Order: sequence, then C-alpha cells, then structure tokens
Amino acid sequence: MLKGACIIGQSGGPTSVINASAFGAIEAGLESDAITKVYGAANGIRGVLDDKLYDMDAEDINELRHMLYTPSSALGSCRYKLKDPDVDDTDYKRILEIFKKRDVRYFFYNGGNDSMDTCNKISKFMQKSGYECRVMGIPKTIDNDLFGTDHCPGYGSAAKYIATSTMEVYQDARVYDIGMVTILEIMGRHAGWLAASSALASHARFGPDLIYLPEVTFDMGLFIKDVKNIYEKQGKVVVAVSEGIHDKDGLFISEYGQGTSEKDSFGHSQLGGVDNILSNVVKRELGVKVRGIEFSLLQRAASHCASQTDIDESYMAGRAAVENAVNGVTDKMVGFERVEGKEYKCNIKLLDLTYVANTEKKVPREWINTAGNGINQQFIDYALPLIQGETKQVKENGLPRFAKLKKVIAK
Amino acid sequence: MLKGACIIGQSGGPTSVINASAFGAIEAGLESDAITKVYGAANGIRGVLDDKLYDMDAEDINELRHMLYTPSSALGSCRYKLKDPDVDDTDYKRILEIFKKRDVRYFFYNGGNDSMDTCNKISKFMQKSGYECRVMGIPKTIDNDLFGTDHCPGYGSAAKYIATSTMEVYQDARVYDIGMVTILEIMGRHAGWLAASSALASHARFGPDLIYLPEVTFDMGLFIKDVKNIYEKQGKVVVAVSEGIHDKDGLFISEYGQGTSEKDSFGHSQLGGVDNILSNVVKRELGVKVRGIEFSLLQRAASHCASQTDIDESYMAGRAAVENAVNGVTDKMVGFERVEGKEYKCNIKLLDLTYVANTEKKVPREWINTAGNGINQQFIDYALPLIQGETKQVKENGLPRFAKLKKVIAK
Repeated sequence: MLKGACIIGQSGGPTSVINASAFGAIEAGLESDAITKVYGAANGIRGVLDDKLYDMDAEDINELRHMLYTPSSALGSCRYKLKDPDVDDTDYKRILEIFKKRDVRYFFYNGGNDSMDTCNKISKFMQKSGYECRVMGIPKTIDNDLFGTDHCPGYGSAAKYIATSTMEVYQDARVYDIGMVTILEIMGRHAGWLAASSALASHARFGPDLIYLPEVTFDMGLFIKDVKNIYEKQGKVVVAVSEGIHDKDGLFISEYGQGTSEKDSFGHSQLGGVDNILSNVVKRELGVKVRGIEFSLLQRAASHCASQTDIDESYMAGRAAVENAVNGVTDKMVGFERVEGKEYKCNIKLLDLTYVANTEKKVPREWINTAGNGINQQFIDYALPLIQGETKQVKENGLPRFAKLKKVIAK
Repeated sequence: MLKGACIIGQSGGPTSVINASAFGAIEAGLESDAITKVYGAANGIRGVLDDKLYDMDAEDINELRHMLYTPSSALGSCRYKLKDPDVDDTDYKRILEIFKKRDVRYFFYNGGNDSMDTCNKISKFMQKSGYECRVMGIPKTIDNDLFGTDHCPGYGSAAKYIATSTMEVYQDARVYDIGMVTILEIMGRHAGWLAASSALASHARFGPDLIYLPEVTFDMGLFIKDVKNIYEKQGKVVVAVSEGIHDKDGLFISEYGQGTSEKDSFGHSQLGGVDNILSNVVKRELGVKVRGIEFSLLQRAASHCASQTDIDESYMAGRAAVENAVNGVTDKMVGFERVEGKEYKCNIKLLDLTYVANTEKKVPREWINTAGNGINQQFIDYALPLIQGETKQVKENGLPRFAKLKKVIAK
C-alpha cells in the first residue's frame, strides 16, 4: 500500500456538479487508510504552485456533503496552462518540491480538456523524476466533448436545464396573437452537445422548430429560408443555435459585423452574441418580430435544476478516482461506459491520460438530420437517460442550501 | 341565483403561475350550479371581440389540472387596449353583443394593471347598459406593482427564481483567482420589487453586494465609487439592477448611448440592456473584468422553480373570483391580505376595480438602505414567506409535464 497525502484540485469553467466529484474524491480520501491527509488545492494547480492548500480534514463531513448540491468550484478554479516541460520545467519542479514537502503520493485533478492535459503532463513528469505519485483525472465539462467516455459529468445537468428552460421559453413564445421568432443562444464553441439538448424539449412537444450545431456548416441563406417556411405556416418559430456555428470559410457567425469582413452586412451589432446577429438578420430579411435569448452562464451553474443521475455519476467518478489510485492505478482518467440493454446503466472505465488529453468529441453527423437543422432520434435515445432524476438539493427558507466551507489553509 | 355562462380571459405578459389562477376559476366554474357553461377567451379580450372562445367543458379535468404547473397563458394573451367608452364604444357594444348571444353573466379577467383597467371599463359599461353581468379581476404580475393587495400572484415565483439564480451566479462569479465584477439585469421598469428579491440571495449569504432599484435616483458617479470600494476590498463584486433605473433627469440608464444626449459617453452600445451599459462604464472607469447577465424572460416563465405558496395562492385567487361572483359580488379585484402574526397567512380581500386600475405600488423608500444601494430587513421579512415551498410540478422523462389542452372552439 502506497501511503501518503493526496491533493484534489478543480480546474476550468465550473459546472453545477463539479463539487459532487470533488466531494466523492474528498470523502473517499478521508475514508482511505492509505491516504494520510486530504488537501484541497486553492484555485487548481495555482494553489499547488503557491502552496496554498486547504486542510479538508478540518471540515465537518456533514457540511462537505452539501457540496453534492453546490454549483461552481468550491475549492476555486483557474485557467493556468502549464508549459511544455521540455521547453520550461520550472512549474513542474515546483510541483515536485511541494509534493515532496507534503509527502503527496496521490494527485486528483478535476476538469475538462485542458485540465486532462495538465494532469497528463504532471503524471509524466513525476514518472520521469522517479517520484512515486499516482495521478488521476476526473472529468467535468458541460460541453460533453471529452474523448473516450460515453458522456461527461456536468453535461446531463446542463442538458436538463437547457431542455427545461427551452420548454418554458417555447410556452412564452406562443402566448400573443402576433407573429414571433425566438432565437436561443446556447453554449458550445466547437461541439453542439448543449444546443442539441434543446431537442429534448421538442421530444416533450414544447421545443425548437430548428436547431443548428457547429458540426454542420451554417448557411445564412438556408437559415432564412428555414425560418420563413415555418413562420408562414405557424406564425411562431423557435430556433436554437450553438454559439459556435460558423460558415463555410470557418468564420464564426458571432464574429459577423465586427468590421472585418464582407459578412458585416449580416449583423449591425458590435456586441457579440450570435442570437443578436441572427435576430438582426431575420428582422431585416423577413420584417418580423424577433427576440434573442442567451441562456448565459446559468447553463453551467443552475444546480437547482441539476440531474440527479448526473450528480450520482459525478460523485461516483470522484470516488472511483481515489479508490482506483489506492489500488495501484495511475495515469488514467475516469470515464463512463454505457451498458448495452434496455435499462440505462453506466459503469466506470479507465482511460489513458495521453489518450484523452487535447482531443474533442463532436455530435455524430448521423445524429443530425440531413438538412442540418434538426436532431435525430439517436441523440434523444442517448441524452434522455442523462437528465433523469430531480436533484435532492436541500432547501433552506425556500432557497438552495449551499456548502459553507471553512477553508483552513494548511500550515 | 344568477344563471348563465362565464368567460375567463388572460391578458398581458404571462407569468409562471397565471394558469394556476385560470385553472382555479375554470374548476370553480365547472363545479358551480349557477354557471351553465365555461368559456376560455382565446387571447384575452381579442377572443371575446372575435367570438373565438374555447369550450372548457370539452377538456379533461385531469389534463386541466396540469395548468397549475404550466407557465405562460394557456388560453393565449393580448396587449389590446380598449378605448375610452366615452370616445369610442364600438368594442364595448361588440362585447355586449357576444355576452348576450352566449348568455354570458360572469366575466373573469386575469392580468396586471392594464387588464384591471379593461376589466373596470367593461364592468362599468355593462352596468350602464343595464345588462346584468358580474365582472371580477384576478390579478397577476411578476412586477408586484398592483395597488391595494399585499402582493400579486406571480411575484413569489419570479422572486424565487431570481434569488435562486442570483445565488448560482454568485457562486460562479467567485470561482477564478482573478478580479471580476458581475452585473445582473433584472426586470422592473418602474417598481423595483423583482430586483429587490435578489436581496433574498444575500440573506442566504450568496447574494449581491449592491442592489439598485428605480425607486432611488441612479447616480453613475456614486455607482462607480460603490463598485470600486467593494472591488478593492474583495476583488469580486456582484451587482443587481432593475432595468428601470434612471438618473435625476428621469432618463433611463438603458437609454444612455442611443445617440440622443450627452449621456452617450457612458455607453457605447446601441443594443439596449442596462447590464451592457453599466458593464462598459465599469470596464472603462475601473479597467477591470466585467460580465453582464440578463435573466430575460425566464423570470416570468420558469415554472420549474415556482413557489408552491405562489401556486396555491394564485389558484385560490382564481377560485375566489368565481365563488364570490356566484355569491353576488361584482366589480371587484381579488386581492391578498396578510394576517398579522408570527406565522405567514394570507386571506382573500376584495378591492374595487376603480380603486386598483392604473395605479402602481412601489417598494417603500424605508425598505431600501439610506445610500440607496441595498435592501433592508423589512423587505426580507415581507418577501421570504412568498418564496416558500417547492413546486409539485409533475415530471415526465425528467422534464416538466405541461398541460396539453384540446382548445375546442365553441360553435
């Protein structure tokens, strides 16, 4: 048995369930005989570099348990990118120094693509240095774009929030006796998983008529034609778009109208927001009432509408990282494997960090309709199980009861 | 006993619980011996003028019951304003014609300020015409600005959504190890009840540092000073503002930067949004990272986060309108009266339509702090009971189960 302290860090953009993973890891760490001390890194790898570590043993376990239902990163996050160690290994040497000083033999890093890259680099450096330290990645990303895993912790909750809010907006959009086009801007720069989740609202009969993902080249002419057709039939059109839709030249539609190209004629706004750009175009081309709505960062923070399935799985992923590491596994990311069969079931699988770092998983083209403006049943079958279950979040005075940590800095 | 048909109409901007009131009225109407037929007006008073009425007797009562948890106006809404009958009584004559044709003896109108005005005018015209018809107003407005009632159906749910989402944004706003100012734009053109509800998040320890309502004149210089002070202390600032804040000349801050005044220098954006205008000013004056977030129409549509207290009271208001009318009451709006005492309790009271129409209730100045940038305990004591209770909304496949009405048009 490898005995020593562990560090748990959170990195990248937060999600509504990233703390469920952190809690799983912290709880398993506190329970383990191999782990002598549990540290939480303040603001991810920055906390390690600065030796700013929280003493998780000092927290009340019942308070920590509220982390399951507390959005955003309780330990703080960062967007610090480690250099290539072959170019500059200063940061790595510093990390090794801290690991040695505090006898850290387990390192758990909770994040998305970039964080898995950080995790991988640290793991390889420790191996090269001959310092025994087990390194495990715990995925999180609402974008659902991590490679090799069926889905990512955080995605189910974001999808549930988007589908729910889309249903509500759909209802609102049809209330008046006048024509109306509503355009919903949904997160997702390169992969369309989040915007696709609005199709779950359509599946429930209260969803968008048109959905555009970055996986398909966006054509403004076809878009206007699509909207016009539906408007003429129904008088109301609800459109969902990924923020990352782009044209055949690879230019983001959100960059139209920034004074740099002939595409400017499409959008007159200087403030980004693909919803604004498309609203302006529809207004001008069709002369109808248009409303743009951006779900903004509530997509990643709305823990009150989290999927309990997602919470359970995120927690499981955190625990699995620690349990596997204690059992001798290292250099892996915890992933999910869907079990074949009628009932949804999800098992843990372990993936090489090298394999997952810096790769991106997109929505398969065959899950999008031929016209590129809607979502097929395969996606519904894939995503529906992930949004099941209402959160068991505790309420106090009618509002969420978030974790209130002491965050004692380790001496 | 006055026997005859009834019409129930919905008007103005929808809320997440306006259908709970409509269901209360429809259910009480279907149960009543006096009421021979229950019609739902398609798109409010427009449906009456067009004789487009839904036959509510044709609906399944179990399906109707889902209206309790279905946002937006199930019967459709309108913003049609009736003319002064002394100037042009064409519409009133047409309404009387329809009432006579269908033997309508009860008229229930569910809406905000303008709708109570409509209701009042119809009531007075029927009286003048000697046509016996009992007219009752059922209030709804997320703005909470109706006169004479302790609070309005719809407000509690909007307040709960705003407080919850503000807590989540607050968590997200503190996650990185860099400075950040977050500005939340909340609905409310003339009254600050909605923006004030963000103070409930502060009461729960995860809320805004600064709150600005339209009840206090907004001073850009003081605002910048306020933000600067807190930023220097904490590095993070969360600000909540009503969309309706205005300067000492009465100019809305959201109108700054529209090329019409010397105030343009404050905002460079042509797209509205007081969050954008203030973000630009903070960025320029303090040179810090700023993020603007608009809660947009989800404030009025988020039934998944509705207050069960609000749902129950909205339903009760709908029922009370019908029951009182059947018992001989007319020309009134249903209002709420808070019972004095430690436990929150709310009773129905009846207000003259003339008294409530076209007046506006604002947040009392003494409920706002002296500096005009925060909310006092009196408001918390007032609002906290209104957001209690989680919605009993039925879920299907992890998503809200909305009412699916047949909407059979009455022959």
